[in-house]
Amino acid sequence: MTTYDPPLRDMRFVLNEFLQVQNLSNLPGFAEATPDLIDAILEEGAKLHSEVIHPINQSGDKEGCRHEGDRVTTPKGFKEAYDTYSEGGWNGLTFPEEYGGQGLPYAIGIAISEMTDTANVAFAMYGGLTRAAATALLTHATEEQKTKYVPNMIAGKWSGTMNLTEPHCGTDLGMMRTKADPQGDGSYKITGTKIFISAGEHDLTENIIHLVLARTPGGPEGTKGISLFLVPKFFVNDDGSLGDRNGVACGAIEDKMGIHANSTCVMNFDDAVGYMVGDEFKGMRAMFTMMNAARIGVGLQGLGQSEVSYQNAVTYAKDRLQGRSLTGPKFPDKPADPIIVHPDVRRMLMDQKSFNEGARAALYWLALQADIAYQAQDEKDKEKAEDYLALFTPVVKGYFTDRAFAHAVNAQQVYGGHGYIKEWGMDQFVRDARIAMIYEGANGIQALDLVGRKLGAHGGRAIMSFLGELNAYVQEHEGNAELEPFMVALKSVKEHLQSAVTWLMQNGLKNPDNAGAASTDFMHLMGITLLTYMWTQMAQRLSAGGHDASDPYYDAKLKTARYYVDRLTPEADAHLKKILAGSEAMMALEADAF
Amino acid sequence: MTTYDPPLRDMRFVLNEFLQVQNLSNLPGFAEATPDLIDAILEEGAKLHSEVIHPINQSGDKEGCRHEGDRVTTPKGFKEAYDTYSEGGWNGLTFPEEYGGQGLPYAIGIAISEMTDTANVAFAMYGGLTRAAATALLTHATEEQKTKYVPNMIAGKWSGTMNLTEPHCGTDLGMMRTKADPQGDGSYKITGTKIFISAGEHDLTENIIHLVLARTPGGPEGTKGISLFLVPKFFVNDDGSLGDRNGVACGAIEDKMGIHANSTCVMNFDDAVGYMVGDEFKGMRAMFTMMNAARIGVGLQGLGQSEVSYQNAVTYAKDRLQGRSLTGPKFPDKPADPIIVHPDVRRMLMDQKSFNEGARAALYWLALQADIAYQAQDEKDKEKAEDYLALFTPVVKGYFTDRAFAHAVNAQQVYGGHGYIKEWGMDQFVRDARIAMIYEGANGIQALDLVGRKLGAHGGRAIMSFLGELNAYVQEHEGNAELEPFMVALKSVKEHLQSAVTWLMQNGLKNPDNAGAASTDFMHLMGITLLTYMWTQMAQRLSAGGHDASDPYYDAKLKTARYYVDRLTPEADAHLKKILAGSEAMMALEADAF
Repeated sequence: MTTYDPPLRDMRFVLNEFLQVQNLSNLPGFAEATPDLIDAILEEGAKLHSEVIHPINQSGDKEGCRHEGDRVTTPKGFKEAYDTYSEGGWNGLTFPEEYGGQGLPYAIGIAISEMTDTANVAFAMYGGLTRAAATALLTHATEEQKTKYVPNMIAGKWSGTMNLTEPHCGTDLGMMRTKADPQGDGSYKITGTKIFISAGEHDLTENIIHLVLARTPGGPEGTKGISLFLVPKFFVNDDGSLGDRNGVACGAIEDKMGIHANSTCVMNFDDAVGYMVGDEFKGMRAMFTMMNAARIGVGLQGLGQSEVSYQNAVTYAKDRLQGRSLTGPKFPDKPADPIIVHPDVRRMLMDQKSFNEGARAALYWLALQADIAYQAQDEKDKEKAEDYLALFTPVVKGYFTDRAFAHAVNAQQVYGGHGYIKEWGMDQFVRDARIAMIYEGANGIQALDLVGRKLGAHGGRAIMSFLGELNAYVQEHEGNAELEPFMVALKSVKEHLQSAVTWLMQNGLKNPDNAGAASTDFMHLMGITLLTYMWTQMAQRLSAGGHDASDPYYDAKLKTARYYVDRLTPEADAHLKKILAGSEAMMALEADAF
Repeated sequence: MTTYDPPLRDMRFVLNEFLQVQNLSNLPGFAEATPDLIDAILEEGAKLHSEVIHPINQSGDKEGCRHEGDRVTTPKGFKEAYDTYSEGGWNGLTFPEEYGGQGLPYAIGIAISEMTDTANVAFAMYGGLTRAAATALLTHATEEQKTKYVPNMIAGKWSGTMNLTEPHCGTDLGMMRTKADPQGDGSYKITGTKIFISAGEHDLTENIIHLVLARTPGGPEGTKGISLFLVPKFFVNDDGSLGDRNGVACGAIEDKMGIHANSTCVMNFDDAVGYMVGDEFKGMRAMFTMMNAARIGVGLQGLGQSEVSYQNAVTYAKDRLQGRSLTGPKFPDKPADPIIVHPDVRRMLMDQKSFNEGARAALYWLALQADIAYQAQDEKDKEKAEDYLALFTPVVKGYFTDRAFAHAVNAQQVYGGHGYIKEWGMDQFVRDARIAMIYEGANGIQALDLVGRKLGAHGGRAIMSFLGELNAYVQEHEGNAELEPFMVALKSVKEHLQSAVTWLMQNGLKNPDNAGAASTDFMHLMGITLLTYMWTQMAQRLSAGGHDASDPYYDAKLKTARYYVDRLTPEADAHLKKILAGSEAMMALEADAF
C-alpha cells in the first residue's frame, strides 16, 4: 500500500545547482557525467525503484527469509528484481571501467544508492555489501585477486559480505577468536563462528565472496593480531567457472525486529579455505575501508527511511479528513479538513522535509569529498577532503540515523491508530530505520570515534578547517540582508560548536570520561551545524538569483530553509549545555545503585 | 528471557517519604491505608507481577491473539493469570466497598497499576479498560445499572470496553455514524462498526460490557448528538445469570506492531440491544470520564515500558564485557570491562533512571490529586486538585509516553545488535511502548487539549495556580545552599514556562495556528518543568534530613536528582525557542509543495 516516488527534482537541485557538478570537469569521471547523462540515469533509476524495487518492500517484510538446511531463500520477487538491477549495471556505477564499472563519481552514484535505500532497504543491503566488499578488494587485494573476484561482484553475479562480529564480541574486535591456519600453499583454513552477517547466505547470486577477519597462529593479542581473508562460498576455478562448495555455511538466520527480507546469518566456518587480503595483521585497516564506506551508506539508509516515510505521511495527511483548521474550515464543502491543515501535523512533516533535503545536500556533498579525496591532483584539496570525509562519516552515520528513526516514528504518528496496523506499512519504516542506529558500529561508537579519534587527528586539523570555513563564510555573507535569519542561525551554531570544541580540548584529555559523556551530544551538535550550514548555503544560492523564480520548487526550498533555522537550529543549545555539564553526575553512581 | 522486579523501595519512598500518605488520614481511605497494609499489598503485588504476569509477556507477544468465527483466544497462560489476578481482588483496589472494591486511595492503587503496566502491558489493558468502564458507569449510570453490572466487573468476572473510533473517524468523533434506534421499552438497537476496540472480544471473562457511543435519531449533528450506551455481550437476567448472546461480535482482529497479546478488534454492532447511560446527547461527557482516567493510565504504561526496559538494560550493561573504561581497566582480571563503565551507556541508563523515578513521583502525586479532587472536604483544596488533574493529564499522557518510547529505544540500544533480535525481548518493549503515543488521543491531540482547553480554562486558573506554587516554593527555599543547583534549574524552567504562557496568551488567540504550532513543545516544556519540580522537592526532602543517611538508596536518589537537573532540564530552552518561533515558517508551504 505504500508508494515511493524518487525526488528527482530535489536530487537535480543538489547535483546541478548546489554542488554544480557540471563545473567539476577537472576531476576524473565528472567530465563524462553531462547533465543529460545524469538526467537519463536518474530517470531510468527512478522507474526501476518505484516500479520494481519498492513494490516488493512490504511483501518482503511480511514473508521474510527462510532457512532450510544450508540454504536461505529470499522473499518472492527478490531474485527477479536483483537480476534486473544487476543487468541494468546499477551495482557498477561508480566502479572503474577496467573491472566492468561505469566510472561515475560517487557524488552521482549516491543518488541511485539513495533510491535503493529508500525503496527497499532490505533489498539494498545485498548490493550495498557487495560494493563495500569489492571496494575493500580493489584497495587491498592483489591484482590477481581483483581480476578473479571483482568483475563478477560488480556485475551482480556474485555478492559480498563482511564477517566481523562473534557471539562474545561486537564492538570489541580485539576479543575475536576465529582462527586462520596457514596451509603452506598460501591458503589458510578458517574456523570459527560469526554472527549478524547480513546477506551471509541467500539465493540471489551464484556465488558469495565472504571477507572474514581472523587470527593467524602466534600473532599478537587484540586487534593487532587480526588479518583479513577472502572466503568464497564456491571455489573459483582458473577459467572463472565455479568449483566445489567451501567449508562455510549458514547455521541459522536471526528473527529480527525489521529488515526481514535481508538474511542476517550465523555463519559457521569449518576449515573453510581462505586467502589473505593485504598484509598479515593489517586486517583491521582493510576492514575500516569497508566500514567507512558502509557507514556513509548507513547514513544514507537513514535518509531513505525518513524520505519514504515522509512521502507516505504526506499522502495520508492530504487524504485523511479529521477536524477543522484552527483558523476556520479550509474545505467547508467536505465533512472535515484534511489533517495537513493542522499545525502539529505540519510540524512533523516540516521537521522531516527540512531534515531530508538538508541531509540529502550533506550526503551528496560528502560523496563529493570522497571523489576529491580519491581523485584530486592538488594535495591540499585532497587533504582537506580526506579530513572532512573522516570527520563527518560518524556524524552522518550517527546523527542522521538517530534523526531518521525519530522521523519515521513521526511519519507513523501522522497516521494515528492506522500507523500501528501493519497493513498500512508505516510500522515497517520504523522497524527498518531502527537497525541503522545499531549496525556498522552503534551510534554511541560513532560518537566516541568522533570525539576520541576524529577531533584530535593531526592536531585537530579537520575540525579547525571546518570552523575556519564557517568563519570565512560568515564573514563573506554577513552583510546580505536577505540571508539575515540564516546568518544569525549559522553564527549561533558556529559559536556553540566552537565552545564545545574548546571545552573538549580543555577537559577531555584531563578526564577521558568527560569526552565520553559529551560524545553523543557533540555528534548531534555537529550534525545540526552541518545541516544549518547546508541550508544557509542553499538559501544563499537562491538569494544570488539565476534560477526561474516562478518555479514553486524554489519558493518551497527557501521556506523549508527558513523552517530549519527557526525550528531545528535551536536544539544546538541544549546539546552544548549537556556537554558543559561534564561527566560527574553521569558517572556518580556505583554500578550496584542502578 | 526478560525479567521484572517491581521497584518496591522506590514506590515506598514516593508514597511514604515524598507524598507522606500516612499524614493524609483526613481523606477517606487513607486512614485505613496504614504503612503495614501498604507494605503487604506491595509485597504481594510484586510477587504476582514478577512471577506470574511478567513471565507471559514475551510468549504472549510471540503467540498473539487468534480470531476464529466470533471467538478470540488470548495467548497461553493469559486466562489462568487473569483468574489469579481477579481472584486476588487486584481489579477492585480503588473501588467503593459497596460494589465489592477495597476503597483504597488512587495514590496507593496506582503502585499496583504500575506493576501490571510494567510487567505486561497487553495483559494490563484487559483490567485497565474494565476499571475505566466501571468508573464511567459509577459516575453516569443509574443505580440499577450500577448494581447490575459493576460488581462483576470489579470482581474480574466480566470485563469492559470503550467503543469510540469508526473507520472514517478517529479523533473527530463528530463524524461518527453508529446509530441507536429507540425500541419504546427504554432500550435501543445499536448498528454500526467500531474499530481499534481494545479487548473487544477475548476468552478471559464470562461476559463483556461494551460502552458504545452512538447517535439517536433526530439529534443534532457533530458531537452534540452523541449518547453513551451499555451493550452487554451476553444479556444479564434479573437474577444476575447470563442470557442470550447480543448482536455484537468481533469481525476481525488487527495485525499490529505490538501489544500482540491484547485483542484489538473490529466490532460489528448489528441491531445489538443497548441501554443508555446518562442523559441523551451527553455521551461525550461520559466518555471523557473514561478517557481522562484512561489517559493517566496510558502515561503510566509509558513509565512501565521505560521501567522494564531500563531494568533489563541495566542487567545487560553489567554483564556484557566489551572494551575498557576510558579511565583505565576497571576489571583487569576479565577480558574486558562490563559496558556499564562507558559514559555513553551511563547516559542512556541515567536518562532513563532519572525519568522513571521523576515520572513515578509525578504520577503518584497526580493520583493523589484525584483522591483530593474526589474526596476532600475543603472546596478550595478540591478545586486546586481538580485544576491540576485537568492540566497535567495531557502532560503525563503525551510527554511521558513520548519520553518513555525514546527510553525503550535507548534501552534496546544498550544491547547493540542483540537488541534488534526478538529473542532478547528488547524490541517488544519498543513496539509495546509505541502505542501509548497513539491511543487514547494521539499525543498531538493531548498537546492541543493542553494549549487549547486546559491552559485557558477558568481564565487560566490552573496554570496560574501552578506558577504561583512554583514561585512560592522558590521563595521559600532559595537560600538553601545544599539545594542550589536544583533552585537554579527550577527557577530557569519556571521562567521558561512563564515566558511561554505569556507568549501563548498574546499570540495564541490572535492566530490560533500559533497555539497549534507551539502545542507539542509547550507540552514537553510542561513535562520538563513538572519533573524538575518533582526532583527538586525530592532533593529538598532529603536535604531536610530525618532519613537513614547510611542507606545507599538515598545517596543514589540525590545523585540521580542532580543528573536530571544537569542533563535534562536544559532541554526546556529549545522548546521555548521553538514556541517563540511562531507558526509562520510551519504554515508557509502550500499543501502541494509537500
